[in-house]
This record gives sequence, structure tokens and C-alpha cells, in this order.
Amino acid sequence: MTDIALIEAAAARLDGRARRTPLLSSPFLDEIAGRRVLVKAEALQHTGSFKFRGGWSAVSALDPETRARGVVAVSSGNHAQGVAHAARLHGIPAVILMPADAPRLKTANTRALGAEVVTYDRATGDRDALVAQLAEARGLTLIRPFDDPQVIAGQGTTGLEIAEQAAAAGVTRADVLVCCGGGGLTSGIALALADRAPGLRARPVEPEGFDDVARSLASGRIERNARTTGSLCDAIITPAPGALTFPIMQRLCGPGVAVPDRDCLRAMALAFTRLKIVLEPGGAVALAAALFHPDTVEGEAVIVVASGGNVDAALFAKVLKEFGDRA
Amino acid sequence: MTDIALIEAAAARLDGRARRTPLLSSPFLDEIAGRRVLVKAEALQHTGSFKFRGGWSAVSALDPETRARGVVAVSSGNHAQGVAHAARLHGIPAVILMPADAPRLKTANTRALGAEVVTYDRATGDRDALVAQLAEARGLTLIRPFDDPQVIAGQGTTGLEIAEQAAAAGVTRADVLVCCGGGGLTSGIALALADRAPGLRARPVEPEGFDDVARSLASGRIERNARTTGSLCDAIITPAPGALTFPIMQRLCGPGVAVPDRDCLRAMALAFTRLKIVLEPGGAVALAAALFHPDTVEGEAVIVVASGGNVDAALFAKVLKEFGDRA
Repeated sequence: MTDIALIEAAAARLDGRARRTPLLSSPFLDEIAGRRVLVKAEALQHTGSFKFRGGWSAVSALDPETRARGVVAVSSGNHAQGVAHAARLHGIPAVILMPADAPRLKTANTRALGAEVVTYDRATGDRDALVAQLAEARGLTLIRPFDDPQVIAGQGTTGLEIAEQAAAAGVTRADVLVCCGGGGLTSGIALALADRAPGLRARPVEPEGFDDVARSLASGRIERNARTTGSLCDAIITPAPGALTFPIMQRLCGPGVAVPDRDCLRAMALAFTRLKIVLEPGGAVALAAALFHPDTVEGEAVIVVASGGNVDAALFAKVLKEFGDRA
Repeated sequence: MTDIALIEAAAARLDGRARRTPLLSSPFLDEIAGRRVLVKAEALQHTGSFKFRGGWSAVSALDPETRARGVVAVSSGNHAQGVAHAARLHGIPAVILMPADAPRLKTANTRALGAEVVTYDRATGDRDALVAQLAEARGLTLIRPFDDPQVIAGQGTTGLEIAEQAAAAGVTRADVLVCCGGGGLTSGIALALADRAPGLRARPVEPEGFDDVARSLASGRIERNARTTGSLCDAIITPAPGALTFPIMQRLCGPGVAVPDRDCLRAMALAFTRLKIVLEPGGAVALAAALFHPDTVEGEAVIVVASGGNVDAALFAKVLKEFGDRA
């Protein structure tokens, strides 16, 4: 089980490997939100998302003999890159199972980071069976995208940094909005904050129509999404919260928030104009909630985790065309 | 005169005010450049460029009575925002004299940061006479964009951070490429490095056709640009190196480098794809030199200062359209 000790141990393994990302702000964003907005820029993490933290944490936690045989992961992109980069830095093989319709940039980057990419059809393929076969046949260890204690611990190191950086900025009581798929980042941050900054409360943010975590927190049991395609926020769409992550979120998180895709695109344009960072739609849901749904947030300040920036240039150019002038 | 003591004093005044910007990297950029590339992301500084450092340093160094009457600055944009923001945080008035054709985003931001903007015609107006009149009539103190000891000291704090961050990354011998206009940032960094990291050598990078600093360093006397318009890198076009900055650069800097505008646009696309940061053309010249003119650089690693990110959304969208797919 992930607890603060496991997160601290992950932080020690990540020291000098993961980037300590900055906590950014802009008076222009504060004005839109009606409160101070502090943005943890995890898009600036190695491989362009927080996923490198969990990937490094999990790979570095394996015993050397097991690790040397290699790892396998299933991912639409960001987890793939995080695991691939962590594996390459460890000098071990990585096989990544990706949906055939994953964004081109993510597939290409994963290959360029030295991983072998195996594709499957998202609609018809049984990815769990495929990955089990791969792991068995080649002696690879599966690194799960969120439901793994060491992955949650790695993502939780983001929370340790937020606790320190928020205190340095004079913020000790605030909602911490986290872009949420399966809940690895959200539950990891929640655990870190509960120990280090009890006045900071983690809250999951999801795309409208794919708010399985928010509904699960509301009903008290794991709820599933009706579908897992059809949102621009592909990076954070998962069928349901994890068996490990959900109990943590249930114990420690505030209510979830859901935002429409269009608000994510507006938030991307504002992050471009005001913070000079690149966000992908799924990495902008939390910022969108803070800026455009301020009534769902409590307190004089809000902390936002901007979790990833792996977006195709063509989509980003479209976003700037549509929303750039008003950002 | 600016020396290491003045830079250290500026660093003390900037502590908790300026952002300590991260030193970013990507294996993809290393591959293009053929060596390690470390990017000091000053576009993530408050107001989107390093200019906030010099603005804060100069405003905070004034005696309280003088400061209370307010400050005035002449700037096409980034210095304007840096001074305006520093003045607002000090609770004092700021008047900014800007060319009427400055990018809309920069003018609007300067006003939104609480400054009074006075415009002049870049071709026909005598800006020096105008600013002298303004200062005299209202008792304002002129904050020069680069030829001011306290401004150079403020920009030099970037060099203190580079010295620490490069050492932490294991780099103690490298060229440090700096986007260079009048030389405030370049000379400040050169002074800081000479004291803290003598194996790191500052080198100015300019747009082709506007390489007054490179030519001045080569000839040993101040050379002027034939014109000051016509480059996309408007933020770093100045008529000639400064009377204070040039002797420092002459004493401490390696030879200058000049790069074509087109290479800056390609570098902007790569900073988007690989680092998730937004750069303006003038803020990307140093990265362009590192990536596309590797023969002009010496050593196994190169450090690049990415100095600003205040670019209009329309131009950035064009850059992504033209260069994004290949980035």
C-alpha cells in the first residue's frame, strides 16, 4: 500500500532524476479566476508529463534481476513515454502496447525513446490478454499506469513539492485541482498533502461525460464511464477509478469536478499566453476548472496541477486560432 | 559599475520575487545539436521574459523617496512589462513610452499591469527627447533597458542560477549562448559566470543582419546596426551595444553568433514540441544557434538562455503550421 513512507522513498529515488517543476502564476489568471491561481507545471517534467515520476519510481523499485529482463506497459501515450524513458535510463528493454489510434507524436516519441511499440485495436483488441501474453513470453514486468503502489508513490512526489512550494508562496489552505484519469496522480498527491499540508485538499478534475471518479466519489462505489472515446482529453480517459486509487481518493479527496472540452481548449490558450507553457487538453482540465468554474472551488487561492503537454502541433495551432486572440 | 557584489545584492532583493526558472533538456534536442543542450527557461519568468529581473532590481534599488514619484521606461515590450510589473508590486506609478507598432499583446499587457502607455512613431519620433520630457515634467526616474548598473545586476542573477544549475547537471565547461539586444542580459550573465563558474563562457547570439554586438566584439569598438526594423526578433533589436555593457562583454564574452529568422522559428517549434515552453523569435535565437549552428559552439554541452515568450498567438500558430510537423 502506498503511504507517506513509500512516497518519501520514491522521492529519494527520483532525486536528481525527475525535474522539480515550478509553481507558476500570472495576475491575469488570478483576475479571471477571482482568486490566486498557482499552477504546478508538470508539462515541464521529463517526457512532457508527470508520468515520468511514476515510471521511474516503479522501474527503480524493481529488484535488479527482475528489472534487467525489462518492463512492459499499456498506454495511449504519456505513461508509455514515462516508462520508456525510465527504462532507457536504466539500460533495460521496454515494450509498450499502444492503441493504433494514439496521437502520432506520442507513438513516435515512445519509439524514439528506445521502446518497442506493439499496437492493438482499441475497439476490438483485448489489451489485458495481449499484455499478459507479452509479459509471460518475454519475462517482462508489467508497469501499470495507475493501480500500482510504486506508481502512485512516484506521482505522489508531485504532492511533496506542492506542499513546499505552496507554503513558500504563503498558501496553506486551498483546493488542489488535479487532472484525473485512473487516479494515480490524484491519490498520490492526496496522500502527500494529508501528511505535509493538511490545509490543502486534493480534488479530481475530469472531462464532462467521462467523470467516473467524480461519480464514484459521490456514490461511494466504483462507477464506470459509459464510453472511453470521444473526448479531446484522451490522455486522462480511463474506464473506471482503480482498486488501489479509489479508496485513497475516497478517504482524502474533496468532490470531483467535470469540465467541457471547450473550456480545456480555452485554458490551453491562456496557459500559452500567460504562463508560456504548452498543455494538452487532458493536462488543462484542472486549469479550466479553476478559471471557468470558480464556484466549484473554495478558498482565496487555488492550486492547479497542469499535468501534461504532449499535444500535436496541428491541434495546438487550431486552439490558438480559435481562442488565442481572447486569451 | 556592475560587479559580482552588485549582482549578489540584486539577487538578495529579487529573492522570493523573481522566479528561479528551470534548466530544461530533452534527448531529442541533444540529438539534433550533437551535444547536451541545457535550456534556461526565462520565458517562464514573471511577465514572460528575463526583463522582470532587471526591472525589479532597478526599482528596488532606488531610494524610497525617489521611487515613490514613479519610473519611466522606453521599450518595445518586454522591458516595459518587466518595469510595469515591478512598479506595481512596489505600489508606484510607471509610464512606458512604446513604439506605436509594438506587438498588440505587449502594449495591452503593459497597460493591464497598471502602467500608463505613451506611444511614439518609431520612424519619426525622438524617443530620447520624449522620455526626458516625461521624466522632467513628472519627476519620474528613467529605468534604462540595459545600460544601467542595477539593470545589468538584475539580469546577472540569471547567471548565478545558471552556475548552480549547470554544476548540479554535471556541466562545468560549456558555452552559454545568450539572446542579445543591448547586452544587459549577456553582460550580467558574463559577470556572474566569471565569478561563479569560470569554465562557462557567455556568448551573445543575435539575428542575422542585426549583429551589432558580434561585429563590435570582432572589431574591438562599438559598431551600429544599419537598421533597427525588419527582423521577426523585434524584442532584441537595438541600434548598438551599450556604453556599460560593451566593455564587460569585450572583457568576458566569447565571439558572437548570428542566426537567420527562419532558424528561430524552427527553434520555437522544437521548444514547443520538446520542452513544452513558448518562445518568441527573439527569445529563441540562442536555441537556434545551439541546434542549427553547432559548429559555432565548442564543448560537449551547451547552455542556452531562452529569454522570452511574449509572442502573438497568430504568429505562433503560423510557426506550428510551417514547422510543427517536423519538430
